[in-house]
Amino acid sequence: MVLEAFNEPLVLKEIDIPPLEQGQVLVKLLASGVCGSDVHMWKGEDPRLTLPVIPGHEGVGKVVEVKGSKWTVDGDELKPGDSVIWNRGITCGKCYYCAELKEPSLCPHRLVYGINVSAAEKPHLNGCYADYIILRAHTDIFTFPDSIDPAVLVSASCSGATCAHAFDVAGGNLTGQSVVIQGPGPLGVFAVAFAKSLGASQVFVIGGSAERLELCRTFGATHILNRYETTLDERRALITGSTHGRGADLVVEAAGAQGAAEEGLKLLRKGGTYLSAGYSQPAGAETIDFYRDIVNKNIRIQGVWVSDTGHIRQAVDLVTGAPELFAQLVTHRYTIEHANSALSAMKEKKALKAVIV
Amino acid sequence: MVLEAFNEPLVLKEIDIPPLEQGQVLVKLLASGVCGSDVHMWKGEDPRLTLPVIPGHEGVGKVVEVKGSKWTVDGDELKPGDSVIWNRGITCGKCYYCAELKEPSLCPHRLVYGINVSAAEKPHLNGCYADYIILRAHTDIFTFPDSIDPAVLVSASCSGATCAHAFDVAGGNLTGQSVVIQGPGPLGVFAVAFAKSLGASQVFVIGGSAERLELCRTFGATHILNRYETTLDERRALITGSTHGRGADLVVEAAGAQGAAEEGLKLLRKGGTYLSAGYSQPAGAETIDFYRDIVNKNIRIQGVWVSDTGHIRQAVDLVTGAPELFAQLVTHRYTIEHANSALSAMKEKKALKAVIV
Amino acid sequence: MVLEAFNEPLVLKEIDIPPLEQGQVLVKLLASGVCGSDVHMWKGEDPRLTLPVIPGHEGVGKVVEVKGSKWTVDGDELKPGDSVIWNRGITCGKCYYCAELKEPSLCPHRLVYGINVSAAEKPHLNGCYADYIILRAHTDIFTFPDSIDPAVLVSASCSGATCAHAFDVAGGNLTGQSVVIQGPGPLGVFAVAFAKSLGASQVFVIGGSAERLELCRTFGATHILNRYETTLDERRALITGSTHGRGADLVVEAAGAQGAAEEGLKLLRKGGTYLSAGYSQPAGAETIDFYRDIVNKNIRIQGVWVSDTGHIRQAVDLVTGAPELFAQLVTHRYTIEHANSALSAMKEKKALKAVIV
Amino acid sequence: MVLEAFNEPLVLKEIDIPPLEQGQVLVKLLASGVCGSDVHMWKGEDPRLTLPVIPGHEGVGKVVEVKGSKWTVDGDELKPGDSVIWNRGITCGKCYYCAELKEPSLCPHRLVYGINVSAAEKPHLNGCYADYIILRAHTDIFTFPDSIDPAVLVSASCSGATCAHAFDVAGGNLTGQSVVIQGPGPLGVFAVAFAKSLGASQVFVIGGSAERLELCRTFGATHILNRYETTLDERRALITGSTHGRGADLVVEAAGAQGAAEEGLKLLRKGGTYLSAGYSQPAGAETIDFYRDIVNKNIRIQGVWVSDTGHIRQAVDLVTGAPELFAQLVTHRYTIEHANSALSAMKEKKALKAVIV
Repeated sequence: MVLEAFNEPLVLKEIDIPPLEQGQVLVKLLASGVCGSDVHMWKGEDPRLTLPVIPGHEGVGKVVEVKGSKWTVDGDELKPGDSVIWNRGITCGKCYYCAELKEPSLCPHRLVYGINVSAAEKPHLNGCYADYIILRAHTDIFTFPDSIDPAVLVSASCSGATCAHAFDVAGGNLTGQSVVIQGPGPLGVFAVAFAKSLGASQVFVIGGSAERLELCRTFGATHILNRYETTLDERRALITGSTHGRGADLVVEAAGAQGAAEEGLKLLRKGGTYLSAGYSQPAGAETIDFYRDIVNKNIRIQGVWVSDTGHIRQAVDLVTGAPELFAQLVTHRYTIEHANSALSAMKEKKALKAVIV
Repeated sequence: MVLEAFNEPLVLKEIDIPPLEQGQVLVKLLASGVCGSDVHMWKGEDPRLTLPVIPGHEGVGKVVEVKGSKWTVDGDELKPGDSVIWNRGITCGKCYYCAELKEPSLCPHRLVYGINVSAAEKPHLNGCYADYIILRAHTDIFTFPDSIDPAVLVSASCSGATCAHAFDVAGGNLTGQSVVIQGPGPLGVFAVAFAKSLGASQVFVIGGSAERLELCRTFGATHILNRYETTLDERRALITGSTHGRGADLVVEAAGAQGAAEEGLKLLRKGGTYLSAGYSQPAGAETIDFYRDIVNKNIRIQGVWVSDTGHIRQAVDLVTGAPELFAQLVTHRYTIEHANSALSAMKEKKALKAVIV
Repeated sequence: MVLEAFNEPLVLKEIDIPPLEQGQVLVKLLASGVCGSDVHMWKGEDPRLTLPVIPGHEGVGKVVEVKGSKWTVDGDELKPGDSVIWNRGITCGKCYYCAELKEPSLCPHRLVYGINVSAAEKPHLNGCYADYIILRAHTDIFTFPDSIDPAVLVSASCSGATCAHAFDVAGGNLTGQSVVIQGPGPLGVFAVAFAKSLGASQVFVIGGSAERLELCRTFGATHILNRYETTLDERRALITGSTHGRGADLVVEAAGAQGAAEEGLKLLRKGGTYLSAGYSQPAGAETIDFYRDIVNKNIRIQGVWVSDTGHIRQAVDLVTGAPELFAQLVTHRYTIEHANSALSAMKEKKALKAVIV
Repeated sequence: MVLEAFNEPLVLKEIDIPPLEQGQVLVKLLASGVCGSDVHMWKGEDPRLTLPVIPGHEGVGKVVEVKGSKWTVDGDELKPGDSVIWNRGITCGKCYYCAELKEPSLCPHRLVYGINVSAAEKPHLNGCYADYIILRAHTDIFTFPDSIDPAVLVSASCSGATCAHAFDVAGGNLTGQSVVIQGPGPLGVFAVAFAKSLGASQVFVIGGSAERLELCRTFGATHILNRYETTLDERRALITGSTHGRGADLVVEAAGAQGAAEEGLKLLRKGGTYLSAGYSQPAGAETIDFYRDIVNKNIRIQGVWVSDTGHIRQAVDLVTGAPELFAQLVTHRYTIEHANSALSAMKEKKALKAVIV
């Protein structure tokens, strides 16, 4: 399915599978996630795209052919039949961010399948809304056991990994801590799961959809706060009242909505951390009183952009440790011909997570 | 029960409860843990003791009386009837380690109930093998809900807190990691629980008691390795074979036995961390090849001595989050008159954890 | 000199030295710094004050008398004649922030000489605009060699320590890094000195006073940028042009002026850190685009409030390592009778640092 | 100069410069450091070598030709005439250590010029004891100003970078700290320079050569301790006596000699860090009492193996910031024909640092 013009339906095309080059891997896609950002791309809101593009950066599949040799991150040689997931981004390994800073997620040359590599560019099969994808030689690949439903694992490669990145920079041990999650979308659901997995004892989720909030409860949220049924003051009172008057240790912004940061900073205790991972598209400005909300409280704010290879591993580990739980995240499944419906379901927020299988 | 002479039975004594001084708290003990180190003290192997001593540094109880005002760490005023647990150590707050380095567990003036404060010293009720204890004004106190069995919570104040300290300095996020625990005693059992709580996907426990190893499995250990049924080479082969040939990410030494460090370092992957928390008494020297086992592998070794107030909170949170699980840690219960039997049960390793109730 | 009414001149009063209580230390003041925040207090803009107050929280002096025994942080017993500097804040040691989090600068019970302890409260001599001060038993005290000019050392206890706190949370090693300092006041000058001391190779200072900017150059600034002679775009172009097009690794906000944060975030490279330490009074809100300036760039913002005992030590070490350099920071000296002139000099920004000697 | 047989003189050979492949860079060598480990290799003690080998992993030179395009780490395109230094190691970028852990110095596929790549392997010019070297496409390259003497910069690529790695994992800010360096060789001299550069106020160096110890003093060492003129007890007494009875904050092992770790751990204060970077060849085992020297003192030991690209940058920044100082490190210079003499001078410890120019 190819995006040829913004705001127009994707078009079903037949593309011949070209002969592989050294180190390339032909993968039959078993599941492709429809990410919220795919909707933004379809609307033409993402400057990284050059049309035509095969969308889809969240993929899981089975190896069909390997040209030459190619190893997984764990050092195993890939063979046809292996079930695989991969880092959706490929970084240059040589720039200041990759080589010196060791922060490849900041690499200015980062190439992402389904986003900034056109279908016009060889080997053409560069996105996941398709039957096959060709992974380039530098792709970081993991295998996983066949017992895992590919549709359930697919989110690990994008929202799961970004969330892993967020908790990684937050520093880890949350034993007994109180965590607030802003936004109960896929990123927020992963945040609930990671917070619980790292020992948090209280997890508050703030959102507008009763259904999604209930799902967060299934993932371990201890308090859900519907934005339409509570005021900011009530939410703040509930959170400080549950934390000996102090406020939350950690707030994870997974909302991407204007006003989220303003509210979130007010929910923190002194010395707390605000992880901002949801603002992945422009959302307007926040009005922040540095004296009151940051300096006087020794607050840390940390922006989190995409993810590195290790974060994908962490997300895969989280999902494979609780596959029944994460199955609930996948609310809609479509075949490839119905990719436009899948996009619509995400656009209209009917689906929490739509997957093309 | 007073220790008046080393290697002699504790003696039951009546001690009048003296009038409290400002900030002191009289607590009726509900449960007192018998720690492995109590056996060492009884044998005279701990240089910190000045006899006579009321042993017992792990206590849980109910407030009977407060002189003046006294607040919990959370800022609540203590009142008679509150169920409480406390930091067994009191530190000076003014020395280089307390005030400048903010590492109070290293304070040279650290006073520990039941260890280095004699029963001859006012207010006499200075240990937990007793009906009452008087907590000094500087004690850090937490309340806990009455629904928790005091005997189950008692370990949180010593081995649980020390273990929390270990994982704290290790840095937290263990998502998907492989952790080896050396020694399935109370410290090792807590290490299994913390490793799982922080996201480890594989937890190997090495020990000599089949029964204790099975208990570790209940706490979430994925592999148990009996020292009497496997060789070092077999253990090493199993661990590297389960980690793509790399070795464990983290090894926690909770054994305190000669040879543990030598073995443990060999089980680590390059760049891994060795947390040594079990050597709390002299155990002889280890023979370490720095080139091969530390430098060439970029290994980190971290010694862990006792714990700070925050670690007690983390241990309490861990136990109160899974009380049925931790109830299995308490294998023997005694009344105060049978404290000598409790000590014997610990000395002969019949009990994993004996508690005086 | 006592502040009896806001916006009125301080009044010279004779106060009898009361008999000391256990652990108190009577100190003859040799130098008292006039801090920019003293001006805000004098204007009634600091809600912490209850009049009457003896202002002055930056003091250096000589021990006259010790009641009982009192030790320095280093464990030496204080004796009359010792030259001393101390932590201007006293924290409770028992609350969540002190005991559990080990972040005493966040203690809600923090008492600061010259600020939130009235002269009406015993022992009355509670501020540094005076001949004598009585240090309470819980004060953390350091001695220093007599060879250091007290007037030069005095800033170490406030702006120096706050700056040490900032670099401490920033994480340390700045070898070869590019650092921007916003604001060339005492805090900014210390920031230049710390940045150089920790290995920074380029230090840019942005400010409005040519004289202060030149002083920063003496302290090691490699580039000075006058706000009145350059536009934001020019400043940004110079900084990115000097950093291979990337932007600064670290920006230290020592300005406290509206707009500083908005500008500062734009000067950072991806993955950089913004230390905000200057907003110590309300300064209005900043308009921050989280997507563009924080999330997409993986930026960290860290608020820095006051300081802990270890930070005072670091600032003292910095000053005593380069006393001639820091002597240039003290632009005006007054005797105690002229404290009102000293305040005026600071208020009108005639003095970079005024000291009462 | 080619090493064709262990323990035999290097042989001068003419090797034709082969045509470059895509991304390769032909560099005319201006200076090649003779590293202590070159002597071990010459003796056949390093298992990584396959003969014949052109030794020399520390090189600085001028670009002669670039095939296709090649960028520096800073993103500048390389052109003939550029003065360059590079990471002596090339890592795979795809394995667990490179891609997931982001610790390329642990990469099992790490290739090092002059060590584990034979002269028999294309493009043959694989070491620095030569007129020319061909840098492979994946080499991380930095340019530097022509004003720096190449012979002075050369150590930055090996001992300087390893030392930067050590201080990097130590965590940075040393303001006012006391640091002990074991071993006054090139690694130890860099350790003195880094310790001073990061703010240490006391630097003790322990060694056996009066001349080298004096050089350390020039680099900023505050105390020198000759092993032949002091006993361990005296060294320990001096260090604890200079640190208020506590011991050093940090000990850097740059000796590689048996017994260094045993002594070094005893010199640390409680909670201190032992950086072990000198054991780069087998040196026998150390006898370590974990209870007394690690656990009871909360000691951290950190092994440090080779270095990453960022560490080379830090070392280059340190040297270019003080070129006159570092010029003193280069005690002997040889032309390429006298490479065997250079090796001898290092072997017999006549030279602190010999450089082929």
